[in-house]
Formats: sequence, C-alpha cells, structure tokens
Amino acid sequence: MSFPPPSASKHDLEEGAVFTPKFDANGLIVCVTQEAATGEILMLAYMNELALEKTLETGVVHYWSRSRNALWRKGDTSGQVQKLVDLRVDCDQDAVLVRVEAGGDGKACHTGRKSCFYRAVSPEGRLSEV
Amino acid sequence: MSFPPPSASKHDLEEGAVFTPKFDANGLIVCVTQEAATGEILMLAYMNELALEKTLETGVVHYWSRSRNALWRKGDTSGQVQKLVDLRVDCDQDAVLVRVEAGGDGKACHTGRKSCFYRAVSPEGRLSEV
Repeated sequence: MSFPPPSASKHDLEEGAVFTPKFDANGLIVCVTQEAATGEILMLAYMNELALEKTLETGVVHYWSRSRNALWRKGDTSGQVQKLVDLRVDCDQDAVLVRVEAGGDGKACHTGRKSCFYRAVSPEGRLSEV
Repeated sequence: MSFPPPSASKHDLEEGAVFTPKFDANGLIVCVTQEAATGEILMLAYMNELALEKTLETGVVHYWSRSRNALWRKGDTSGQVQKLVDLRVDCDQDAVLVRVEAGGDGKACHTGRKSCFYRAVSPEGRLSEV
C-alpha cells in the first residue's frame, strides 16, 4: 500500500473519504499517541510512509526514529508494544492520532514513566512532576 | 520572559527543573491540545517562543499560525478561546501538551467539529467520521 498524494482541494482534504497524509519536507508526519482506555497522552513521535503503512497493515504501532534514522516498532526492545485501537487524521491531514492499548508494563516513556508528558511548566518556567 | 537554551545534558533535559523548550529550524515547537475535562484531543498546532510565552503569561492559549505566519490567539475570531489548565512538556522538551477548557461552543476545529481528529482511517486507507 502507498498513499495517494494530498488533494489540492481543501474540501477533499477535509470532507473526502480518501486518506492522503501530508508528509513534511523530511517525509514525516507527526503522531500523537493516546491510551484509548484512559485518554492519557502517552507520547508524541513521527511516522514516515513506511511506518504509517506498517501500523495500518499490522495493527501494531510503528514510528520513524529521528535519532536512529530507522523504522521503529515500538516495543521491540522494551516490550512496550502498542496495539492499535484506531488511527485518526486531522482536518488538513498533516497529523495523526493513534489510540492504543499499551503492552508490557505500560510505561511508554524511556525514562520509565507511563507518559512522556510527566512535567508541568509553571508561569515562571519551572518544571514539576505531575 | 524568554527561555534558556536546551541543555546538552540528557539528564538535565529529562530530570531537571528548568523549562528549556527546543524549537525546530523554523523556531516552532509542536503542541497537542487536550480538553482537560474529557481527555479528548482537540487539535495539534505549533507555537513559537512568543506564543509559548503569551500562553504561560496570560493563561490563554496562543499558537503560531503557519499558514498566516502570525501569532494566533485561538478564539479571537471564532470565540473558541482556550483557557489553560496546565502546560506540560515531554521528556526531551521538544513537544508540549496544553490541557484546556474550551470556550465558545467548544468546537475547536474550523470545520465546525469539536475536534480536528474527526475521521478514522481504515486499513485500506478509507476515512470515516467517528
């Protein structure tokens, strides 16, 4: 599977029935990952076309690792496999949301936390764990 | 207020108490917007340093509009003002999550939906409204 190019029609992008993801200059699309059962945001990462295809085909979430420059099947080393519940796209088709069941011990962040968004920012720019 | 530059230390980024947002080559940081009361993801957008500062200072969410190339106080024209509940940052400080109370009629998407992520993608690449 590969994806058709984005339509030039705003109406097609927003109201059409065809998935035409818009990749950026680096061939990536931003992806927000949410635990389906709780609504908690687990992480934010990127997919390239291959990662997006693999995610839809296998039902297991794949990303593109920008630091390793490699396809990244989340959980291959950590056991934190993410089972896809559904994949959604936003109005202009340049961002996706994956709703998942988290596998392993459910800690999606490499620091050992469940979510990568474990700190709140004060108005003065100080961080505190939530 | 302006923000200190990102530390070269991974430990400082992940465990430190200072907010050092990492902006990309265009001076932007990606932002996920979540309705605090329900956990629903409303939208994904970008902030520049000014938008991030204004959001923290005023408690009202500001973005950077990439299409208009302008500071964008969400709701100025639509009435969909987003009141900040809290702003969180991820482990490597290159993405933020804003948890909000949505104002106006609560429809964050310009298409008239509550959320921009109103379509699910089938394995065959077809879209259907959720």
